[in-house]
Amino acid sequence: MSKSLEFLTEALRRLPGIGPKSAQRMAFHLLQHDREGADMLSRALHQAVEAVHHCALCNTFTEEDVCDTCDDEQRDRRLLCVVETPADQLMIEQTLTYKGLYFVLMGRLSPLDGIGPKDIHLEKLVARANDGVVSEVVLATNFTNEGEATAHYISEMLKARGLKVSRLARGVPVGGELEYVDAGTIARAMLDRRST
Amino acid sequence: MSKSLEFLTEALRRLPGIGPKSAQRMAFHLLQHDREGADMLSRALHQAVEAVHHCALCNTFTEEDVCDTCDDEQRDRRLLCVVETPADQLMIEQTLTYKGLYFVLMGRLSPLDGIGPKDIHLEKLVARANDGVVSEVVLATNFTNEGEATAHYISEMLKARGLKVSRLARGVPVGGELEYVDAGTIARAMLDRRST
Ligand SMILES: [Zn+2]
Ligand SMILES: [Zn+2]
Repeated sequence: MSKSLEFLTEALRRLPGIGPKSAQRMAFHLLQHDREGADMLSRALHQAVEAVHHCALCNTFTEEDVCDTCDDEQRDRRLLCVVETPADQLMIEQTLTYKGLYFVLMGRLSPLDGIGPKDIHLEKLVARANDGVVSEVVLATNFTNEGEATAHYISEMLKARGLKVSRLARGVPVGGELEYVDAGTIARAMLDRRST
Repeated sequence: MSKSLEFLTEALRRLPGIGPKSAQRMAFHLLQHDREGADMLSRALHQAVEAVHHCALCNTFTEEDVCDTCDDEQRDRRLLCVVETPADQLMIEQTLTYKGLYFVLMGRLSPLDGIGPKDIHLEKLVARANDGVVSEVVLATNFTNEGEATAHYISEMLKARGLKVSRLARGVPVGGELEYVDAGTIARAMLDRRST
């Protein structure tokens, strides 16, 4: 096989969930049927790596210093909702039940995978939550074991600093991941959120 | 979501078998955990699109005019094995039972998908098989309905031009795809190949 094709197959394996067979298929497909797509993906990757970094306030991906959501004057700055990923934030936005701001952990505590408090930016969260304006932190991590442990850890940490902390109500099925739950269930859980 | 991130997610959907959720997950993963991988993939795609084209003789992917296999003086130039894809060629190489040359169709006849003789380069195959040196064409298309129909079509076409044509023996399970068959079965089928 040609060197460029081997390099491409190897690079495609860096994508999560892509094994050697799939990577080879993708490489062949792009070169045989979609060179325009390959070129587009090459440029998109380059551009994203160059331009995208973390919001100074909420830690989500953005091309500005502060993301559009954090910059939105219409938002209730007294509420701060903590989510694991940008995808989870999008799900909550779609429920139209929440008008506060967010903090995106970009992960969850997972001691078995070596993911500790530093990896999910908890110092940045503490600083953010202690801006003197935030009056309630709503924990919306997933209702998995790791998400619950993360919520518990953050709750203890913030309550020790005198902040009011709530958790989405258990309308979300136990073991469920927000990204795969319907908006109605999340809306109900948001309305029913409880202090922790 | 940031423009660059949206563009990246959209571009990842061009990969075969990747839906919107997977594309989003991949984009987040690359930006959060593997920017080096994203950069590597960007360069690999660019390089492959620039450098890779089809071998003048066998039609497979190569960076030269003629690929290493076609260029190999040790090969028996009287035998020409027709396969659907480079992956199928690799599988046959692994059996170590075949020392001739190849022709890679880069597809199979599929009227329902609008894939006709031109799309699988049959004119190039006819020219290649009629070089005056090739004395037997071994058809190693898949044993699926489309692969069998392709073999039949090519067989009729080449026999009408006075060429000897054989087909891998039906040691390969009916309905099976070469890429997923063990090397031993393919080796047996190669040894048992029959005239058509
Ligand atoms: Zn932000
Ligand atoms: Zn070649």
